[in-house]
Amino acid sequence: MKRTLIRSLEENLNKNVIIKGWVHRVRRLKGITFIILRDRSGMVQCVVDNKDPIIHGLKCESVLEVSGTVKEGKNSLNNFELAVESLKVLSKVEEDLPIEINSEELNISLDTMLNNRILSLRHEKKNAIFRIQHIIVEGFREFLSREGFIEIFTPKIVAEGAEGGTALFKLDYFRKDAYLAQSPQFYKQMMVAAGYERVFEIGNFFRAEEHDTARHLNQFTSMDLELAFIEDEQDIMDIEEEMLKHIINKLELEGTRCFKMLNVDIPKILAPIPRIEFEYAARVLKENYNKIVTDNDLDPEGERLLSEYAKEKYNSEFIFVTNYSRKKRPMYTMPKGINGTRSFDLIFKGTEITSGGQRIHDYDMLVESFEIKGLNHENFSSYVNVFKYGVPPHGGLAIGLERLLALLLGINNIRETSAFPRDRSRLTP
Amino acid sequence: MKRTLIRSLEENLNKNVIIKGWVHRVRRLKGITFIILRDRSGMVQCVVDNKDPIIHGLKCESVLEVSGTVKEGKNSLNNFELAVESLKVLSKVEEDLPIEINSEELNISLDTMLNNRILSLRHEKKNAIFRIQHIIVEGFREFLSREGFIEIFTPKIVAEGAEGGTALFKLDYFRKDAYLAQSPQFYKQMMVAAGYERVFEIGNFFRAEEHDTARHLNQFTSMDLELAFIEDEQDIMDIEEEMLKHIINKLELEGTRCFKMLNVDIPKILAPIPRIEFEYAARVLKENYNKIVTDNDLDPEGERLLSEYAKEKYNSEFIFVTNYSRKKRPMYTMPKGINGTRSFDLIFKGTEITSGGQRIHDYDMLVESFEIKGLNHENFSSYVNVFKYGVPPHGGLAIGLERLLALLLGINNIRETSAFPRDRSRLTP
Repeated sequence: MKRTLIRSLEENLNKNVIIKGWVHRVRRLKGITFIILRDRSGMVQCVVDNKDPIIHGLKCESVLEVSGTVKEGKNSLNNFELAVESLKVLSKVEEDLPIEINSEELNISLDTMLNNRILSLRHEKKNAIFRIQHIIVEGFREFLSREGFIEIFTPKIVAEGAEGGTALFKLDYFRKDAYLAQSPQFYKQMMVAAGYERVFEIGNFFRAEEHDTARHLNQFTSMDLELAFIEDEQDIMDIEEEMLKHIINKLELEGTRCFKMLNVDIPKILAPIPRIEFEYAARVLKENYNKIVTDNDLDPEGERLLSEYAKEKYNSEFIFVTNYSRKKRPMYTMPKGINGTRSFDLIFKGTEITSGGQRIHDYDMLVESFEIKGLNHENFSSYVNVFKYGVPPHGGLAIGLERLLALLLGINNIRETSAFPRDRSRLTP
Repeated sequence: MKRTLIRSLEENLNKNVIIKGWVHRVRRLKGITFIILRDRSGMVQCVVDNKDPIIHGLKCESVLEVSGTVKEGKNSLNNFELAVESLKVLSKVEEDLPIEINSEELNISLDTMLNNRILSLRHEKKNAIFRIQHIIVEGFREFLSREGFIEIFTPKIVAEGAEGGTALFKLDYFRKDAYLAQSPQFYKQMMVAAGYERVFEIGNFFRAEEHDTARHLNQFTSMDLELAFIEDEQDIMDIEEEMLKHIINKLELEGTRCFKMLNVDIPKILAPIPRIEFEYAARVLKENYNKIVTDNDLDPEGERLLSEYAKEKYNSEFIFVTNYSRKKRPMYTMPKGINGTRSFDLIFKGTEITSGGQRIHDYDMLVESFEIKGLNHENFSSYVNVFKYGVPPHGGLAIGLERLLALLLGINNIRETSAFPRDRSRLTP
């Protein structure tokens, strides 16, 4: 007989089934024992006769195969339960668990959670995070693939950094210096130029940042896209907006159970996401919040206040800020006017989740832009030379997956939204 | 007016359109000039009056915006052409191209091809490779997602290697030794154990192999899956077979144009893929080809001959070889009998494209298996300790994407099926 998933038991009332999963909880009464069994689809109460020798000394998280009959019976989990006929241990647990994972909340420190990562991920509320992640990345790809994008895989070992040399992990590559890639920036532009026009990648990238904050990971997952034949940066924001709507729609269709479990609302995009220029954003912050913007950039407080403003003024959880100053943007950014750029950030729940914009596609302009930044373009020749041979107007964006998940789910430390985070001190598990 | 893709021109006969793309070829006659314009969807002949000043000195690979009327007109490309009303240069080319990319075949050396990667990828036949790649990875994910798998992202920076320490790239990770991951093996098993049961990843992994052959890359793309609650390794082969059928079906639906361009047939799976044990395979090779198998493993010639046998005997382009010796398989492999394992390889067109099998899920057995291999399990404690807390029977497989593509398309050197290959000497582009 084939295994039935717990979420399908209700359709099998009064039928004989086999289920398989982990022992979530055991409660022994006088003549019977209740075992809560958990599989990837849910939990069910199993009723076992105490005469069954297996239940004696049965520890939580043991893996069982259980056959029995699905019976009506209201309990805290479902309107049915399983009357067990036979039990088989598929994988035994002999030690007590180092953390308690069958409680409503997982009340342990972040370090304990990550040190016992596999057990903590079995807790429903932690488990849900990466189910939601799956829906997001699938939604991202589905939407883009339908829009004519193809998926690419770019080098993670590179000879030079796209952002100009800071915070790179260095590597011994057959007696040569090499670095771990910080982003697919150059390569996604090059694939656009190779005739694919529209490309995306979801890949792991690396930043050797020394600071150990709740916002930074040394390995992160970047959702990148790049597309050609745009008019300007507005086209990129249009694509992002449509893509976010698709993902949100998918979260509503497939993620409701997880969001409910986490007691979080799925965000909504009811009207076009407001787009305001950086200069205007600075004025808003000053006039409404008496917050002075310095150094042509928004600090975390500035982003938070601007989110507040977007919520109040536009009833929007998202806001685009455009036209950042040239000083603050990388050398590949398309200038706008004398000091501006065709760039944007998307701010969501108080934090930037996307950086994007139009890129320079003209060779001479690109060489000049390297110079302005004090970079020698000859050190980037395999990238720069591409622009001699016909690169269409293009642009793109990048979304940090772990940060998006953290903001979406109201999780404070980004380490929780990476299954196996890497930070200054953490290399295992 | 919105841009029309070239493949949609036929539906726009006698209508005014705007197309955008690269100048593939220019041919000047007395009063008119033919420009073949190429976009991501195809090519079209554009007819321009010689009075238009733009066409003078127009170089191949310039990027144009062309508006005109779609007219009937048979030519070598289509049954229609574009009568041009106006031309605009979106991106100019001033230098001659270093390689000729508008010929039927791209007759250049591999090194020249890779040194001029972006131009060589514009050649239709090279371009097609990564369009097919897109269909394959999308098919892999679609199938698995529908079967209840979720996508995971595992660490690429690790403290220890899954295969036991050979061919690892070493990294300075904040004054600690770390390595680039060779595979997601430990982590995908751990995610199965974390309650997800069914997981997959398509990610870049790294092998510091010194040898420079047509079969090896130092960065490769691994398509990995892992699933729990299996009976044995046969379940994994079942999944792979269904997955391959799905991908093949998708290639037929979406990839026909690319395969035709490359003059390659899409493979077929007409009957169950034959599954033979290693011992039997060795006997077949000896009896049919007088080939002696040594060291309990198939060498490239052995794999090639076995493929021949599968074709002749079973009319199959694929063949599973199972039950490899324990000596030849990693420490996590589930033993079978005294010397065997619940492992398999899938051989396709003469080369192994998949390694897979059931894994050990019992803690004591795993510790013993590390010992047998001469490995100290304490060096792998973050992996081994997981098995104390209830890991269900499970197994999985890995497919090297670049190798699969090369075999599928009859490409001899795997560097051609990586957009930006990394080998001993190649770090750019």
